[in-house]
Amino acid sequence: MNLIEKTAAQEIKFHGRIINLRVDDAVLPNGNHATREVVEHPGGVCVAALTAENELLFVRQFRYPYGEVLLELPAGKLDRGGEDPLDAGKRELREETGAVAASYRSLGKLYPSPGYCDEIIHLYFAEDLTFGDSSPDDDEFLECERIPLARAVEMVLQNEITDAKTQVAILKVAALQNQ
Amino acid sequence: MNLIEKTAAQEIKFHGRIINLRVDDAVLPNGNHATREVVEHPGGVCVAALTAENELLFVRQFRYPYGEVLLELPAGKLDRGGEDPLDAGKRELREETGAVAASYRSLGKLYPSPGYCDEIIHLYFAEDLTFGDSSPDDDEFLECERIPLARAVEMVLQNEITDAKTQVAILKVAALQNQ
Repeated sequence: MNLIEKTAAQEIKFHGRIINLRVDDAVLPNGNHATREVVEHPGGVCVAALTAENELLFVRQFRYPYGEVLLELPAGKLDRGGEDPLDAGKRELREETGAVAASYRSLGKLYPSPGYCDEIIHLYFAEDLTFGDSSPDDDEFLECERIPLARAVEMVLQNEITDAKTQVAILKVAALQNQ
Repeated sequence: MNLIEKTAAQEIKFHGRIINLRVDDAVLPNGNHATREVVEHPGGVCVAALTAENELLFVRQFRYPYGEVLLELPAGKLDRGGEDPLDAGKRELREETGAVAASYRSLGKLYPSPGYCDEIIHLYFAEDLTFGDSSPDDDEFLECERIPLARAVEMVLQNEITDAKTQVAILKVAALQNQ
């Protein structure tokens, strides 16, 4: 079956600091037209950093859209202009936790909400950590925390961790360690 | 540490068919102000439906923001007005695959992109399936597929499946079965 949609027209409705919003006129496989709302995002990165004691590094921060403090792995968005995801991961890990990792492995990528958003989040597994000072941005408020990997897996399965990239990265690290 | 941000002002910049976009003026814990871009979404649901042969039901569909055909578990958005997530899951599973499940269990919820979006995706595990005709919307083009659970887990770990809710639901179902 032909599943492909084609773009007939594009209109940017909003230019933001983090996201843009575009509304496209798309041509469906049957020739009908449909409106497609697309959130444009520069992409993100998330790092599962494991200590020698088999603990993962976490950050707690207020997430404005939910009005909740969430427990997440260190993460951030790529600088516009196509920053290398691994470089961004190293930067975010150091800024948010003070950690520098000697070993990095890719944990693949994740499309958070493919119906209306083009964001790609790149996941990494970091080991062989050394610690310096963290240096969050002036207006970035977060608390660091270490949680044993086995406990983190439990927290995902018991729905104590809700962030998608954090859930995926924890379950992938656990799967790798069980292989 | 106080992490809480407060809302000083809100402005809707875009009212769409699926999403709205809001820009808020937020007060940070240190009293500074910051702009917060928020995508408003009614919420979604995703169903991991397992056959008696230990196969998961999948759909392939074109995802316009990426310009790619993606392999995902059956899913959809909640009707505006606060549709019950489980009802939505039953509807989406039947419409997209023709399957009706006698047994449903919650697999928790997932926040796809908490930095700028308020969407909550509810995950369910469905078993004891019977099959009728699927009934996708007129302008919905998708192909159904069955994949053994063990192979689906491999596809997540080998990055052949990129959709966040699909990755999480598969890894959670596998973890439940191994308990």
